[in-house]
Amino acid sequence: MKKTGGNIRVIIDHISPQVDQNRYPVKRLHGEELQVKAHIYADGHDEIRAVVMYQKAGQKIWQEQPMVYEINDEWLGSFELKEKGIYKFTVKAWVDHFLTWYEGFKKKAADNQNLATELLEGAEYLKAIGKGKPKSVRDHLNKLIKIFKDPSKYEEAVDLVLEKPFSELVSNNYLVNHPTIYPVEVTLKVEDARAGFTSWYEFFPRSAAAKPGKHGTFKDCEKLLPRVAAMGFDVLYFPPIHPIGKLHRKGRNNAVKAKKGEPGSPWAIGSDEGGHKSIHPELGTLGDFKNLVKKAKALGIDIAMDIALQCAPDHPYVKAHPQWFKWRPDGTVKYAENPPKKYQDILPIDFETEDWQALWDELESIFTYWIGQGISIFRVDNPHTKPTPFWEWLIASVQEKHPDVIFLSEAFTRPKVMAGLAKAGFTHGYTYFTWRNSKAELVTYINELTQGPLRDYFRPNFWPNTPDILPYFLQDHGENAFLIRYVLAATLSSNYGLYGPVYEFYENKPVPGKEEYLDSEKYEIKHHDWNKTNRLSDIITLVNKARKENSALQSTWNLQFCDIHNDHIIAYLKTGSDRSNLILVVVNLDPNHTQSGYVQLPAELLKKKGKDIFIELSDLGTGSKYTWTQEWNYIELDPAQLPFHLFKLKVY
Amino acid sequence: MKKTGGNIRVIIDHISPQVDQNRYPVKRLHGEELQVKAHIYADGHDEIRAVVMYQKAGQKIWQEQPMVYEINDEWLGSFELKEKGIYKFTVKAWVDHFLTWYEGFKKKAADNQNLATELLEGAEYLKAIGKGKPKSVRDHLNKLIKIFKDPSKYEEAVDLVLEKPFSELVSNNYLVNHPTIYPVEVTLKVEDARAGFTSWYEFFPRSAAAKPGKHGTFKDCEKLLPRVAAMGFDVLYFPPIHPIGKLHRKGRNNAVKAKKGEPGSPWAIGSDEGGHKSIHPELGTLGDFKNLVKKAKALGIDIAMDIALQCAPDHPYVKAHPQWFKWRPDGTVKYAENPPKKYQDILPIDFETEDWQALWDELESIFTYWIGQGISIFRVDNPHTKPTPFWEWLIASVQEKHPDVIFLSEAFTRPKVMAGLAKAGFTHGYTYFTWRNSKAELVTYINELTQGPLRDYFRPNFWPNTPDILPYFLQDHGENAFLIRYVLAATLSSNYGLYGPVYEFYENKPVPGKEEYLDSEKYEIKHHDWNKTNRLSDIITLVNKARKENSALQSTWNLQFCDIHNDHIIAYLKTGSDRSNLILVVVNLDPNHTQSGYVQLPAELLKKKGKDIFIELSDLGTGSKYTWTQEWNYIELDPAQLPFHLFKLKVY
Repeated sequence: MKKTGGNIRVIIDHISPQVDQNRYPVKRLHGEELQVKAHIYADGHDEIRAVVMYQKAGQKIWQEQPMVYEINDEWLGSFELKEKGIYKFTVKAWVDHFLTWYEGFKKKAADNQNLATELLEGAEYLKAIGKGKPKSVRDHLNKLIKIFKDPSKYEEAVDLVLEKPFSELVSNNYLVNHPTIYPVEVTLKVEDARAGFTSWYEFFPRSAAAKPGKHGTFKDCEKLLPRVAAMGFDVLYFPPIHPIGKLHRKGRNNAVKAKKGEPGSPWAIGSDEGGHKSIHPELGTLGDFKNLVKKAKALGIDIAMDIALQCAPDHPYVKAHPQWFKWRPDGTVKYAENPPKKYQDILPIDFETEDWQALWDELESIFTYWIGQGISIFRVDNPHTKPTPFWEWLIASVQEKHPDVIFLSEAFTRPKVMAGLAKAGFTHGYTYFTWRNSKAELVTYINELTQGPLRDYFRPNFWPNTPDILPYFLQDHGENAFLIRYVLAATLSSNYGLYGPVYEFYENKPVPGKEEYLDSEKYEIKHHDWNKTNRLSDIITLVNKARKENSALQSTWNLQFCDIHNDHIIAYLKTGSDRSNLILVVVNLDPNHTQSGYVQLPAELLKKKGKDIFIELSDLGTGSKYTWTQEWNYIELDPAQLPFHLFKLKVY
Repeated sequence: MKKTGGNIRVIIDHISPQVDQNRYPVKRLHGEELQVKAHIYADGHDEIRAVVMYQKAGQKIWQEQPMVYEINDEWLGSFELKEKGIYKFTVKAWVDHFLTWYEGFKKKAADNQNLATELLEGAEYLKAIGKGKPKSVRDHLNKLIKIFKDPSKYEEAVDLVLEKPFSELVSNNYLVNHPTIYPVEVTLKVEDARAGFTSWYEFFPRSAAAKPGKHGTFKDCEKLLPRVAAMGFDVLYFPPIHPIGKLHRKGRNNAVKAKKGEPGSPWAIGSDEGGHKSIHPELGTLGDFKNLVKKAKALGIDIAMDIALQCAPDHPYVKAHPQWFKWRPDGTVKYAENPPKKYQDILPIDFETEDWQALWDELESIFTYWIGQGISIFRVDNPHTKPTPFWEWLIASVQEKHPDVIFLSEAFTRPKVMAGLAKAGFTHGYTYFTWRNSKAELVTYINELTQGPLRDYFRPNFWPNTPDILPYFLQDHGENAFLIRYVLAATLSSNYGLYGPVYEFYENKPVPGKEEYLDSEKYEIKHHDWNKTNRLSDIITLVNKARKENSALQSTWNLQFCDIHNDHIIAYLKTGSDRSNLILVVVNLDPNHTQSGYVQLPAELLKKKGKDIFIELSDLGTGSKYTWTQEWNYIELDPAQLPFHLFKLKVY
């Protein structure tokens, strides 16, 4: 049997974070710190030292940060993510004989043992750590060695070892000896900080006209930009802007056949007017669109584009690339179905085609084409109906050239599929937040997103509604339901969005018994009174302002729930990147009744400097100010007034 | 960016079991079944099929077993371990278009849709699954194809698809298409079934003399074999039998200096009389030892040998291989220490020596030497003070030639170190059972051993005492403490052992305040009255008999705890390999008082055939019989009678 690992004594294991055994990269954001944990141990009682090793892709030198022993042979280290891009990290550890000697020396000294031989050993270690060090250091060490070796200076030498400067010398000097290096180099993807903090507003450009009965245009959209900017949104997301299929076009309320003049669904893409790289003529020209993108940018707004990789039956691809679709024995092209349901207006792309390489190239070219027109955010429609390996390649390939492009996955599907798309590279994902209403549901779900494995690859984007989803909660409880769900979305998650005007103006008429909008904008042009604002518009403006001004609201992973003995009230503290920015959110989840209870302050606030509690709270919603001096503090929220507190804390 | 994974749609992940990301093999026993789980999903709504692929090392063909969907995209498969040795397994899955077509067909038929095109598609799939099949199968398929393609036989064809034989045809015919094969081949080590079921008895051969004051010999040991066999033990384990160091020899009760004539500790190995391949002269000759091993084997007993890889200062290695030890600047060899404690009678081997390859070879030769003398079980002393990579190599190297050799790790140390040795290859490990006394402690610990990650690599061996450990519980509670701890060890774990005569005869005088034996046999020769038996000897005999006759007591991983509302009573059901062998163990953990309560039968027994409950119980301890017809059943255990029930169940 081949001998390996000779005279190596340290075992390293369970390095975390890792995503699926390092099959996918761990994701973090530029400017964050990565905490690395590992199980580290050796035989016997000798002292171990461990470091996290890390390097950016393309660099040759590994940087190191020390790890510290926490408990039960588990160690912790960290490093700052000062650059964007791909990193690798691993862990190195070794039995440090110099440290072992030093710790033993102190114990033997306390036991009044004779240390003459220990001093001779110490001299050898001092010599060893001097190797390769600058002359000044070696000179200092040589002085010590001389004292250690001089029997007449025994007392002086023992005292020297026991004094503080020697302890620092030990701390700062590793004696690396037969180190173990964990064989897996874990991949880490550090993304642009913008991916961590966005506020989305969605509307249909075709409904942007100032007057009813007209088809909206990009020029109309331009006029709405100041309104969107004033509310504090920084992403404006449009459903697909491509030509809409004319064959099997859907009518109002998803009617199988459109009546004459009905505009169809923007997600049925492609006609004789063009495909995924074309613009629906009624919206305007490519020039109009580029102009809009530019004007939006000037107001701090990115236009997010919707890419739905599916084709109307009259999409140019069908004729140009019939091999990218499935054909039935009767000579027809296979439309989408989920038996017994049929979707004749949509042809799925056959990703099992033998011509997949050309297909992938063409699909990528759609994204790069629009990037060329100034787009850097894509909302991808139904990615879970296309193979995950395709997305993994596509996103990597696009980001190789355009690393900061954001992909939002619209995968309202099963948990593992939703998670798989995030692993494959999607920057953001829509979530189950849309249906999590009770306190227990919210706490469980937020903890799953922020404390479990998802934390390392899934970046949630919270939407209380979408053109596809009008949740029951919004249907049944009037204005307060909209306020509550908005505040939750905007404070629980640093990335959130609204299907805008419909949400803002409390539209909530469902298809009876379903979580769908009646007279959905998906199948018809709507008119919104864009001059109107209301209580919610004001709250949105105020909350978006608070988000911009408080780093505590700019991360999703900095949250802790506070105890409160009322199941209708949820309370959470968010801590900013500088630790002193503290936001306490308290929300009455009951839209109909006043609820009250005592909120417990988190332990870290209580122990502050060991002094009495003295915390000033100013409610960013109402401007009211409070002072708390107790662990438990009374809260009362009347939804008729305002169903939430958004407290900024000052801890004295 | 390089394109990979083209037209592959299924994602496979989270294959379990795996030990540390397949760094170490999963362990199982010959004759068991391995259950394999995986997360498997694809894009869209198509049907997936999945199989476990497995092969024995050296084979070229992968065998397959189907997996079934359980819940939440988690799949389960299994295969029987018909051979000993190293296996590899992984998972293959694919979108099965034939199955997808079939499931869709049924739904469309139920929806009264026209199925003419579906039949034409079906004909194509039938042709595809016929490829490579025998002519008779193809003939049958061709008949079906003909009907499917004949519009005049539309009704007949639809009926054919909807009938049972066609459902079986679908079940039995895979249409493998762009399959995903999980890239990791997980290593599985299938060990000899004996490793799963052993009963150990330990005594010091030097205390085996029939008369007091004499040094016991192997010939004396021979005379005790029938006694050990009659009690039902199948492993007889001896502390080291090598020459004992004379330099710095320890005296009675661990005195730093032995008085003249004191025998010393058998773990201080080596003197001018020889080292690890020699026999302590007073025990007899190598011939005597081999004779003993042979006679034991004839009685169904294996002699387990203790290997302690450390040296007395006068061990021959010190002179022959000084480079295997650490030398101090004062010219002395470094003895063992754990500052401020010193162990001058023991020299640790320096595994960091540059001569490690020769060292490893020599240490391996100790094991192979004794294997040559008929030994197949080693109890390894303090393996956690030698590097884990050494053990990984040593055990693999020995087992390459002698696969069934058992290594028991005596690592009473921190959890991760104990676990690491099991991963590295130790067949058995001593455990924390020795200190787990309360019901909560026992339930938590047993569940950790049998339900958590340890299940896949750590095979516990339960010892209520050892020459090093006299637990407080045994010190304080008289005979019943010994009975209780014995029954727990012998029924909770299929591998267990006793430091025999001392346990059997209730010796429990401690070094005051410590969990150590006063006047320990480690430092002196003892005399036991081997003719004596007592209540415990009888119980041991009876329990070992029950263990041999009931497969339910021959595994550690077949246990479920039963609810009982009394914290002093623990109850667990063990299920045999044939599922009908059921043993219910109920133990009163309170050695001093009668305890009673209602035990709940596990759900699987209640649901038996949907009939009324009717269970006959016969107590293998007392011979008493009971009938239970309720879910909750009254138990009363008076420790003055017997502190446990060992029920064999017959379920009607």
